[in-house]
Amino acid sequence: MLPCILLKLLVHWLGKELPSHVRIVEVGPRDGLQNEKEQVPTEVKVSLIDRLSAAGLSSVEATSFVSPKWVPQLADAAEVLRGITRRQGVRYPVLTPNLKGFERALAAGAEEVAIFAAASEAFSRRNTNCSIAESLARFEPLVAAARDAGVAVRGYVSCVVGCPYQGKVDPRAAADVAGALYDMGCYEVSMGDTIGIGTPASVTAMLQAAAQVVPLKALAAHMHDTFGQGVANVLAALQMGVATVDASVAGLGGCPYAVGASGNVATEDVVYLLNGFGIQTGVDLEKLLDASAFISAALRRETGSHVAKALLSARAREPPAQAQQS
Amino acid sequence: MLPCILLKLLVHWLGKELPSHVRIVEVGPRDGLQNEKEQVPTEVKVSLIDRLSAAGLSSVEATSFVSPKWVPQLADAAEVLRGITRRQGVRYPVLTPNLKGFERALAAGAEEVAIFAAASEAFSRRNTNCSIAESLARFEPLVAAARDAGVAVRGYVSCVVGCPYQGKVDPRAAADVAGALYDMGCYEVSMGDTIGIGTPASVTAMLQAAAQVVPLKALAAHMHDTFGQGVANVLAALQMGVATVDASVAGLGGCPYAVGASGNVATEDVVYLLNGFGIQTGVDLEKLLDASAFISAALRRETGSHVAKALLSARAREPPAQAQQS
Repeated sequence: MLPCILLKLLVHWLGKELPSHVRIVEVGPRDGLQNEKEQVPTEVKVSLIDRLSAAGLSSVEATSFVSPKWVPQLADAAEVLRGITRRQGVRYPVLTPNLKGFERALAAGAEEVAIFAAASEAFSRRNTNCSIAESLARFEPLVAAARDAGVAVRGYVSCVVGCPYQGKVDPRAAADVAGALYDMGCYEVSMGDTIGIGTPASVTAMLQAAAQVVPLKALAAHMHDTFGQGVANVLAALQMGVATVDASVAGLGGCPYAVGASGNVATEDVVYLLNGFGIQTGVDLEKLLDASAFISAALRRETGSHVAKALLSARAREPPAQAQQS
Repeated sequence: MLPCILLKLLVHWLGKELPSHVRIVEVGPRDGLQNEKEQVPTEVKVSLIDRLSAAGLSSVEATSFVSPKWVPQLADAAEVLRGITRRQGVRYPVLTPNLKGFERALAAGAEEVAIFAAASEAFSRRNTNCSIAESLARFEPLVAAARDAGVAVRGYVSCVVGCPYQGKVDPRAAADVAGALYDMGCYEVSMGDTIGIGTPASVTAMLQAAAQVVPLKALAAHMHDTFGQGVANVLAALQMGVATVDASVAGLGGCPYAVGASGNVATEDVVYLLNGFGIQTGVDLEKLLDASAFISAALRRETGSHVAKALLSARAREPPAQAQQS
């Protein structure tokens, strides 16, 4: 017979124990709004961010200091960053595509920035007009400047399981880029299934490869719901031991490659999943629903969150809301 | 050190190995269509069922022999069952709420029927006007008649994790009803999260309880996507060792408790999940998409399947379709 302690250790190791606490990185105000065609007023963006931090989200990606020529929607990046009410303990990362963007972000008071690279050569060339290696090299002076300024840097890898141009992406390709970003100085690397084509099978394989080069606690899962796998992919990531999950309130952020298809996995749906396990997130689902209702009304858009659809419709029928769950 | 074979056995046992083959029970034509307000023509129903069996689904729930007074949409049950082209090896179960319905089904040529009971007393009383025990007792003569006629009986348990009237449902309550249906003679018992309120956590707990009284191979998972957990709940069921999954093409079947909310988990989304793992289903996703496009067009309804939304929109842009997946 096996010694009892050894059996327990094996159960623990193989039982894929879930993390007790998960940090959700809310990406709605940036990743979600960046593709909106109609200009969203700055005060709406600021109010959304403040509602999200009030709901208990400890990391809210606020905007992007990309050239207004490329993303006119986020031309008000500095105003947004200056307009929000900063809550203690809450991080407000901003996307910075280059050194110039970083300098604008720093001048506007950014304390954390995010940089990005693709796991697919085809996507890198189409999206940033350079190879993966070139895009990584271009970020080095930015990361050095951030280090000097005491600004934390988060890394994003896009197309980690599939690419709209080249199809499947090798898990090792995604892991290589993640490793490069981590080695460069990113405190965390978010692995993005940009086109939502991943399944728990491919996401697990990709994260297993990434975990060989980046510590698990420095990996985040950034899943899209385009093929209805968003929540299941988050579950797969949790089972891998990943404890940081990107999500977007109301599922903001359509998929540019399939009209009407879902984009980012909705924060409400992820919180509902995590609440089911009793995993701590610090997020108050009712207040998150307030933020969700606010932005859906402001955009005159049906929510992309299943949970918001079900619970806000229940609220409308019989206030006060009963966010029952089992 | 552990003997190698022992370690392998433990890995196998604790690693929650997934089934290599999953049987999908397509419930769209019955569970999906029964709440449609506008009458769906019989020939549309027949054509849908034939398209689903052509797509490789080996079990297609065809209709319900419920009183036309209660469900006018399914008043053509006998015509549907007589109209379909039966494929060899395909089962066409029909719902039978009582002995009278069973006799009508038998006369129309049914070779498999399904009966149902709720795991929640409150739901049982509201839905069938009797207690759970009474509803089970009423099915006994039906099951006996089916046995005499050589007709297989499938059991459904509804509200297995939550109920719209009483809230949370104890896993043991769901297990008790499942055990009663199995002991009565059902060859399989489908555990239904009728209001889609379950999460992988509560679904796993419920299935663990059910597996104490019903063999795993006789359990099916019937999940709804109301709270966006449908695919993740199916994943949790697979990880429990459940190898039969109910699903509805195009996600047909709204949730009657939340206007606009999703109903049954979409067959396309489940097939996509399973294909990711390389789990055999016998289903041809492209042909399934044909059936999905057909019924969505006939109902003039946007599909409830994420996969259909993404891939049919891709088909429209660049035929022939590329159902790429990673």
